[in-house]
Amino acid sequence: MTGRTWAIGVAGLGTVGGGLLNLLGERPAFAPAGGRTVVTGVSARSRSRPRPVDISGLTWFDDPVALARSNDIDIFVELVGGSDGPAKAAVEAALAAGKPVVTANKALVAEHGAELARLAEANGVPLLFEAAVMGGAPAVKMLREAMVGDEVEAVFGILNGTCNFILSEMELTGRPFADVLAEAQRLGYAEAEPTMDVGGFDAAHKITILAALAFGCAPTYAAAEVEGIDKITPIDIRLAKDLGYRVKLVASAERSGDGVSVSVHPALAPLGHPLAQTGGALNALFIQGRTIGRIFIQGPGAGAGPTAAAVAADIADVMTGAVRPVFQAPAETLQPFRRVDSGLRPTRAYVRLLARDQPGVLAAITETLAEVGVSIDSFLQRPVENAGGVPIVLTTHPAPEHRLFEAVRRMEGLAELIEAPRMIRIAPI
Amino acid sequence: MTGRTWAIGVAGLGTVGGGLLNLLGERPAFAPAGGRTVVTGVSARSRSRPRPVDISGLTWFDDPVALARSNDIDIFVELVGGSDGPAKAAVEAALAAGKPVVTANKALVAEHGAELARLAEANGVPLLFEAAVMGGAPAVKMLREAMVGDEVEAVFGILNGTCNFILSEMELTGRPFADVLAEAQRLGYAEAEPTMDVGGFDAAHKITILAALAFGCAPTYAAAEVEGIDKITPIDIRLAKDLGYRVKLVASAERSGDGVSVSVHPALAPLGHPLAQTGGALNALFIQGRTIGRIFIQGPGAGAGPTAAAVAADIADVMTGAVRPVFQAPAETLQPFRRVDSGLRPTRAYVRLLARDQPGVLAAITETLAEVGVSIDSFLQRPVENAGGVPIVLTTHPAPEHRLFEAVRRMEGLAELIEAPRMIRIAPI
Repeated sequence: MTGRTWAIGVAGLGTVGGGLLNLLGERPAFAPAGGRTVVTGVSARSRSRPRPVDISGLTWFDDPVALARSNDIDIFVELVGGSDGPAKAAVEAALAAGKPVVTANKALVAEHGAELARLAEANGVPLLFEAAVMGGAPAVKMLREAMVGDEVEAVFGILNGTCNFILSEMELTGRPFADVLAEAQRLGYAEAEPTMDVGGFDAAHKITILAALAFGCAPTYAAAEVEGIDKITPIDIRLAKDLGYRVKLVASAERSGDGVSVSVHPALAPLGHPLAQTGGALNALFIQGRTIGRIFIQGPGAGAGPTAAAVAADIADVMTGAVRPVFQAPAETLQPFRRVDSGLRPTRAYVRLLARDQPGVLAAITETLAEVGVSIDSFLQRPVENAGGVPIVLTTHPAPEHRLFEAVRRMEGLAELIEAPRMIRIAPI
Repeated sequence: MTGRTWAIGVAGLGTVGGGLLNLLGERPAFAPAGGRTVVTGVSARSRSRPRPVDISGLTWFDDPVALARSNDIDIFVELVGGSDGPAKAAVEAALAAGKPVVTANKALVAEHGAELARLAEANGVPLLFEAAVMGGAPAVKMLREAMVGDEVEAVFGILNGTCNFILSEMELTGRPFADVLAEAQRLGYAEAEPTMDVGGFDAAHKITILAALAFGCAPTYAAAEVEGIDKITPIDIRLAKDLGYRVKLVASAERSGDGVSVSVHPALAPLGHPLAQTGGALNALFIQGRTIGRIFIQGPGAGAGPTAAAVAADIADVMTGAVRPVFQAPAETLQPFRRVDSGLRPTRAYVRLLARDQPGVLAAITETLAEVGVSIDSFLQRPVENAGGVPIVLTTHPAPEHRLFEAVRRMEGLAELIEAPRMIRIAPI
């Protein structure tokens, strides 16, 4: 491949697109396989918007689909974002035209990955998306390439840097979620519309992609159970810490019988565990292989530089001419996840209650738990200033999740409690 | 490539070779790129030795070179070991015959990598060695493929599981190095001839390979500075812990100006640092990229299962048809490391002294350090039973390494000290 020049079309010129143009401008011959890259065409929402990179010498396309189809490009890079609309149309157009596609778009791959994989494989071109998950840390490459000699049993980790930053700040400052979110938005660590991140949906997109690679299934975003961090309070963070845990937004996928469970929810990780020690905007992932055991990877989850570097690594992969399926098996054979009923999964939980300061409270709580067959592992009653009642925290022994939810539902009816119980799972790690 | 059958020749049938035969026997179509694998020929030192895998249906070769050249194989897997002799001859024969080679042989790649890369590239075939470093954790793939969009500034970590196991056991049990080594040998965690491991040479082979991939140089084993763990004592481990550190064998390579420094030596890592928390036979690696920042990967460093899985992943890579240089640039352009003088590198150190219980000791020590321009950061004098004197531990502020060594040399001459000072670097992490 040495000597060849690869013309790159880039749709989407936000921070990642700008970072990529800079990277390819500074090091056009960066790819070890040889050959040069040159960005020839670009597309974005506004042509005239001020940008830190000069695009005056590049062919401008108002429509990313036209760029994707252009005969003047060899590789199409999609940085538009969004699961549908122009991003999807442009990726489809590029693949249909036989052009390799590199994308950072987790929503697109998580929601339409199987369909796009079929199109890519039918046209004999790669569809790569390293930058969609964990920024510069090569989670996709590890699952797609390094684990193929083993059978992956589970993947779990911290995949959303915004949530991790907010939780870290809440712990550090003791301030409530809404305050810290507002500050994160001012600092640019959170989007103006934060639901994708704080609602857990961004992490769900990412774990859906990793699950598909890990288990050789079609990405099946609809099968993910998703809960965000918006209900986490400083008091939960503080009490969890007293018990030896840190609250994290944990994304996980595991094989179970002939099914797969994929979920994102807040969970407590023991303070000494690598996930608990993944602070700020870092991401982290455990890959559990049957033979290999556990591999842990940690790195910056986002950011223009790391994400652009991941896009460049995918471009370099295209230049090697490697031929492999988009996921772990030919696209036409991919099946959606067979979803496992998580209600039966044995889970430990942290439960926080705010009780009236009166006799009989503990009896009422312990009886309710006993009724549904949930047993208590540890118990902490501690005065907290201005709590408006007596905070009680307990952790449970493992019990099927549906029983834990039933226990919480029943406790909601107790007159001895001032507010509804707050339950957070303890990560099974 | 779908539908094609790839005939594999395996030289070396120890635990890794046996693990590979089992893996390919159970999952011949494991590679996502499609096609089947079948092991057709094998070679080992003894044909009749009892083995957990049945090789009666395979063609036996007394000479691995004959297997490597055989027209009946498509891929040659070298698990013989050793930097020269039959391993090297067989790998050369396979490459010269235009056959892709997969090897787990770190000594061979670290000492002859550039020459073998030239041969591989001249014959247009891949030479892959994921299993040579960090067992099942894909350190090689990360540096070779995932970091190409960035510039790697440094790599450092724990690359020898035997040493890490011994240091962990020494800390846990308080027993001296020789005792723990003997136990590790009984348990099969250390070789009968342990020098390669405990002398730091195995880690030096591995960091040499990673440095070549990180910096686009020829692997230059001779340029590595190597010190093992055989002089580490339980008292050092205990006193370091009192100061907030754990003793680890740290392998590191960094770019410095237009040179590269590669070293392996015991070093103190802060207890909260991921390297300090890498216990037992685990391996761990930090990759520091200019743009991406730090990526951390941790996993099982050895073992038949993980290593065989890494070999299989390389076989799968061969089956994709990817074409890239063996290291980061065409082999004929690779330059050896330009070695940087580590004497000038600013380093902090832990120094342990055993002093006579008499006046003037501290004055003598502090004066000696002041003479060579080394200043003290912290100081610990603590009675230790049966120490035969007064143990004194100090840590220094950063000073050029050559000054630290000069300070130690001068202190050796002090009448106030009962034995020679023991210095261990503090890892710059």
